Amino acid sequence: MSGNSMGLLFTVTSFGESHGPGIGCIVDGCPPGLALTEADIQLELDRRKPGTSRHVTQRREPDAVEILSGVYEGKTTGTPIALLIRNTDQRSKDYGNIADTFRPGHADYTYWHKYGIRDPRGGGRSSARETAVRVAAGAIAKKWLKEQFGIVIRGHMTQIGDVVIPFKNWDLVDTNPFFAADDSVVPQLEAYMDSIRKSLDSVGARLRVVADNVPVGWGEPVYDRLDADIAYAMMNINAVKGVEIGAGFGCVTQRGSEHGDELTPEGFASNHAGGILGGISTGQQIDVSMAIKPTSSIAQPRRSINKAGEAITVETHGRHDPCVGIRATPIAEAMLALVLIDHALRHRAQCGDVRVNTPRIPGSIG
Amino acid sequence: MSGNSMGLLFTVTSFGESHGPGIGCIVDGCPPGLALTEADIQLELDRRKPGTSRHVTQRREPDAVEILSGVYEGKTTGTPIALLIRNTDQRSKDYGNIADTFRPGHADYTYWHKYGIRDPRGGGRSSARETAVRVAAGAIAKKWLKEQFGIVIRGHMTQIGDVVIPFKNWDLVDTNPFFAADDSVVPQLEAYMDSIRKSLDSVGARLRVVADNVPVGWGEPVYDRLDADIAYAMMNINAVKGVEIGAGFGCVTQRGSEHGDELTPEGFASNHAGGILGGISTGQQIDVSMAIKPTSSIAQPRRSINKAGEAITVETHGRHDPCVGIRATPIAEAMLALVLIDHALRHRAQCGDVRVNTPRIPGSIG
Amino acid sequence: MSGNSMGLLFTVTSFGESHGPGIGCIVDGCPPGLALTEADIQLELDRRKPGTSRHVTQRREPDAVEILSGVYEGKTTGTPIALLIRNTDQRSKDYGNIADTFRPGHADYTYWHKYGIRDPRGGGRSSARETAVRVAAGAIAKKWLKEQFGIVIRGHMTQIGDVVIPFKNWDLVDTNPFFAADDSVVPQLEAYMDSIRKSLDSVGARLRVVADNVPVGWGEPVYDRLDADIAYAMMNINAVKGVEIGAGFGCVTQRGSEHGDELTPEGFASNHAGGILGGISTGQQIDVSMAIKPTSSIAQPRRSINKAGEAITVETHGRHDPCVGIRATPIAEAMLALVLIDHALRHRAQCGDVRVNTPRIPGSIG
Amino acid sequence: MSGNSMGLLFTVTSFGESHGPGIGCIVDGCPPGLALTEADIQLELDRRKPGTSRHVTQRREPDAVEILSGVYEGKTTGTPIALLIRNTDQRSKDYGNIADTFRPGHADYTYWHKYGIRDPRGGGRSSARETAVRVAAGAIAKKWLKEQFGIVIRGHMTQIGDVVIPFKNWDLVDTNPFFAADDSVVPQLEAYMDSIRKSLDSVGARLRVVADNVPVGWGEPVYDRLDADIAYAMMNINAVKGVEIGAGFGCVTQRGSEHGDELTPEGFASNHAGGILGGISTGQQIDVSMAIKPTSSIAQPRRSINKAGEAITVETHGRHDPCVGIRATPIAEAMLALVLIDHALRHRAQCGDVRVNTPRIPGSIG
Repeated sequence: MSGNSMGLLFTVTSFGESHGPGIGCIVDGCPPGLALTEADIQLELDRRKPGTSRHVTQRREPDAVEILSGVYEGKTTGTPIALLIRNTDQRSKDYGNIADTFRPGHADYTYWHKYGIRDPRGGGRSSARETAVRVAAGAIAKKWLKEQFGIVIRGHMTQIGDVVIPFKNWDLVDTNPFFAADDSVVPQLEAYMDSIRKSLDSVGARLRVVADNVPVGWGEPVYDRLDADIAYAMMNINAVKGVEIGAGFGCVTQRGSEHGDELTPEGFASNHAGGILGGISTGQQIDVSMAIKPTSSIAQPRRSINKAGEAITVETHGRHDPCVGIRATPIAEAMLALVLIDHALRHRAQCGDVRVNTPRIPGSIG
Repeated sequence: MSGNSMGLLFTVTSFGESHGPGIGCIVDGCPPGLALTEADIQLELDRRKPGTSRHVTQRREPDAVEILSGVYEGKTTGTPIALLIRNTDQRSKDYGNIADTFRPGHADYTYWHKYGIRDPRGGGRSSARETAVRVAAGAIAKKWLKEQFGIVIRGHMTQIGDVVIPFKNWDLVDTNPFFAADDSVVPQLEAYMDSIRKSLDSVGARLRVVADNVPVGWGEPVYDRLDADIAYAMMNINAVKGVEIGAGFGCVTQRGSEHGDELTPEGFASNHAGGILGGISTGQQIDVSMAIKPTSSIAQPRRSINKAGEAITVETHGRHDPCVGIRATPIAEAMLALVLIDHALRHRAQCGDVRVNTPRIPGSIG
Repeated sequence: MSGNSMGLLFTVTSFGESHGPGIGCIVDGCPPGLALTEADIQLELDRRKPGTSRHVTQRREPDAVEILSGVYEGKTTGTPIALLIRNTDQRSKDYGNIADTFRPGHADYTYWHKYGIRDPRGGGRSSARETAVRVAAGAIAKKWLKEQFGIVIRGHMTQIGDVVIPFKNWDLVDTNPFFAADDSVVPQLEAYMDSIRKSLDSVGARLRVVADNVPVGWGEPVYDRLDADIAYAMMNINAVKGVEIGAGFGCVTQRGSEHGDELTPEGFASNHAGGILGGISTGQQIDVSMAIKPTSSIAQPRRSINKAGEAITVETHGRHDPCVGIRATPIAEAMLALVLIDHALRHRAQCGDVRVNTPRIPGSIG
Repeated sequence: MSGNSMGLLFTVTSFGESHGPGIGCIVDGCPPGLALTEADIQLELDRRKPGTSRHVTQRREPDAVEILSGVYEGKTTGTPIALLIRNTDQRSKDYGNIADTFRPGHADYTYWHKYGIRDPRGGGRSSARETAVRVAAGAIAKKWLKEQFGIVIRGHMTQIGDVVIPFKNWDLVDTNPFFAADDSVVPQLEAYMDSIRKSLDSVGARLRVVADNVPVGWGEPVYDRLDADIAYAMMNINAVKGVEIGAGFGCVTQRGSEHGDELTPEGFASNHAGGILGGISTGQQIDVSMAIKPTSSIAQPRRSINKAGEAITVETHGRHDPCVGIRATPIAEAMLALVLIDHALRHRAQCGDVRVNTPRIPGSIG
């Protein structure tokens, strides 16, 4: 268990390197009886797929997923679901010259010192390519949550570099390559990204992912809180450097009289908590934001050292996303789905069909 | 395993309610041979103890810890270390009137719906009183990390409400009740907190915790990254709503040419990464910040509902911290220590005495 | 997590040494709403208690349990239940002379080499005293299983040394100090045990524990099978050297036509499987047997070595059970209960309220 | 985590059905730097392979393994090692007629009631075909244990039905299709197996697996004992109904003066403990035996019921091993290797390089 599994009951165990034979995972604990085909998973994978616009990496992977087990006659059987995505477009020669150097901002230096050996091709295990696996596993989680509870998980970009992106409506998110929920800002983003690319640089981003219709009562005290597990899940996405729930860092300057969400017979009066109190879902919208660092691979010369400890210069001319945050939206959605299904099952395990007489606050769901 | 344990190899399992017989934990996996007495733990507990200034809760708990097992003749034996802190100053009558109501910002509503039953006395299990347990367990982790690797873990407040607190030097942190690393701002903070308290309100805070001398190579890809586990640990502290590593949300507007820390034979040129790349420690300072929401219990009337779903008004007149963030510094230090020791052991398990010929960057440690 | 926890969802984490301040555990994951008092637990503890007849150790521990958390107004709240049993009758001087020697059959030698330090008083952590903790935790599990499913867990001795003990009926088990389900053999056992004790020796035992009314469908393929978890649980009882499910070692000479239990509309025609097929409960009686080695501490001189590696002679004159197997019956029952409740919760988590139209075989339950 | 993983630090997560696209696993936690090729694994797989003699199933699977990740330039990198074995010889029509019936001795009935759905082809997930995965993963463990500690893990049949098989020497084990360590008994076994097959029946078996050169100090108190984890691992092999360590059930009639292994400056005087005391290895040979039930699939008519609950007759004419125990030897070896490597890593995590001055007993290793 060297950290390649997540989830206690809906457990995803991931494998694969950027330029090895393939990547994939085993999903263990999926409830039986869920209708599932490769197309269900492919749909989500295609949202993350590289090569779809000039603003993301030009690497072209079909990312075709194969279900190796756990599904019989179109339904999950309760046994492990293994997913395999073969790597097909590995230009390893792009990376040959970096086997002895440590790229700034990358895991080359840390992997080398940790293991004493590393697969340098495309970053090996540390490549963001692994996130395809999460999207695939998340697709299963999303489907179950939708069918069992009507839960809808959606994400959108809220900022790319200096450009803040307002929220207009959800339908716009999939109409542009930026996962922007406002189409009016798209021309500005395109110009901005073009300028970044021309300057041989990259830029950070901020995105938000929410879940609607999560029932009250999911999450565990005191350590495996729903928000703690969400923070873990988001921070384990490559390049994420910050996570917020609800008001997030905005709460620092809030007063208690403002932050604490009042309850009324018609529902919560606000949602500064982001749908989680004491680590347990309130029935309100789960609201998460995160910061994603700029892509580390840029074509500018950067100082580094080689394995001999000597000063060298690194320029990375592979095919890289100028803003790695752009394609992170479906990944963040998947991660949220994986955390939610795990807690759905954990709640069911311990509390079964707990029902209290108190009416759940109407506004609290939906 | 309903979420009251943390750590895979150095595992803390916590128990206890605010007004029950006591709180405590079992620490399983502590390496044998560590010199340990109750005084070692008490020292850290006293830093978090309530009742030490007018700016924190006036509840007076001696918080005296008893070691029940795992230590023989002053040394850890490798067997579980059980810690017990008896509750002594429980004024349960303070809370009697809230057994049927849900306090805004608290976990009353979520516990009630999750379990169908709740211990309302002082918030029961959801009380921040449980954090004393973490400080106690963290004291053991801190001591081992210090002795084995010279690791120093320290925290300080960087903002309370609207007051930003600059960093001057570490020695100042324990000289004032605000864990401020700058004494010149203390009068301003005292006046500010007095005004908050007089307005029957509370306020949020921001704090930072760092670890120096962490060796390169700790942390696991791809899920149990060091930063992911830190995010989990910090977000599972009561009231935390946001976590940042290194540049944190500042990275959104950074360029790759700025954010990516260059390597030189003399060390890393910067530390935007916060000491972690690809989920693995770089040997630089681990740098974490978090946002803590304002105390939910305030003496102002607030709208809520009771168990019958009827509108009511809640005023909380117990003894509460006007800024719950103030006492969070030792807690955050403890959480960081718990994550680090767990990864120290995980690294040792898998990689043993991996040594590579590349000289570790000088600046990267210390 | 150095091996002092068991159970994935109903998790017992144990602590304590034979002659330290106390022993106890944290039970995490207990469903909320279970009526529970200290008396419920004490009842089971008293069945295991030492000093109740001349055939078991004369150490007299009241073994009074205190519930420290997780119960409010007589019901479990879903939060961790901590149990504490103070040690009161520690005659550490009995053991002083063995701090530098390794008693044959005991864990002295292995603890010493594992940890480089050991608590020699009464065997420290390796003492069978820890099994009181299991009985206490098992009492909670037993109660829940009984109330939710009508599950009854019972054990009895089937052999002590050379004396085979037939099964007559369950009511007899608690009427004699040997947990024999046949009272006619008791005089023979008393004489036998007296002769063993007079010869300053000890003897092994074989016992059986069964669970009735376990629903079909509990257990996980392919590793965490119900029988695998039972084997783990029984083998982790001090002194157990063998475990059998159903026909056990008898299956070696069986034919498939005999061993494979036929199904009929009236029920299974036999139960060679011991109530488990493919790792999952069949609805029949769960049937487990185990072998328990003779007590290692005997008053005869035995060869050993000291810490200097020199040959010495050890005679153990403490207060020891001449047949440690005798008091193991309530422990084995507790362990079976702990495995069953864990799988009950795991099943509920993944499969919820799966109902198939096939009528469950009538004979298969009860 | 529905039970398809084993091992805390060297974690094998298995997937696959008998007649699906393939079977395989992810091995997470393998130390980096181990030389590993597919041939290393294939070697062990071939020892378990079906179709090698008339005494085992005639199903012919090449069982060719593909390493999908975690190995770079012939060495493990510390990242997850995914193994894939495609299914090639699935005659699903053999099983078509049993989709609505429950075969006696098989998991059909229990899977159906657990999940409400099952893959009936060849037993689906419950097929012994999954054990190939364990052999593959075990090959990695074996190799590391051999290279790091010189540990040798070997198994042999000790009884098939009524034929007891003496131990002559290890070299004979791989010279006959029965894993017998005595060639003189082979003709008798052949005749015996032929008679079993002609009577359309099957028979049970007993086998033994040992590990030499295991260092003193592996295993955890009090639950994850080395022997408890071994019992779990063996009992989770399909068809195993009993497990013994050392003297096993023989200890029931032993006296303490006989069973307790004395220590001398030259080594332990005996090994009734089977190399484990207090759950921790003594440095002696680890000695495990197990009972394996007769193959459930036999060509005789057997009573059963169908999904409608009606009485039917089942005859199984697929290609089955008349003694499923025969091919279990390499599986048991693999399981022992998996338990040992996990405890090797756990020990290293907690105790690092504990060294005590006491000389380890010479006879205790080897």
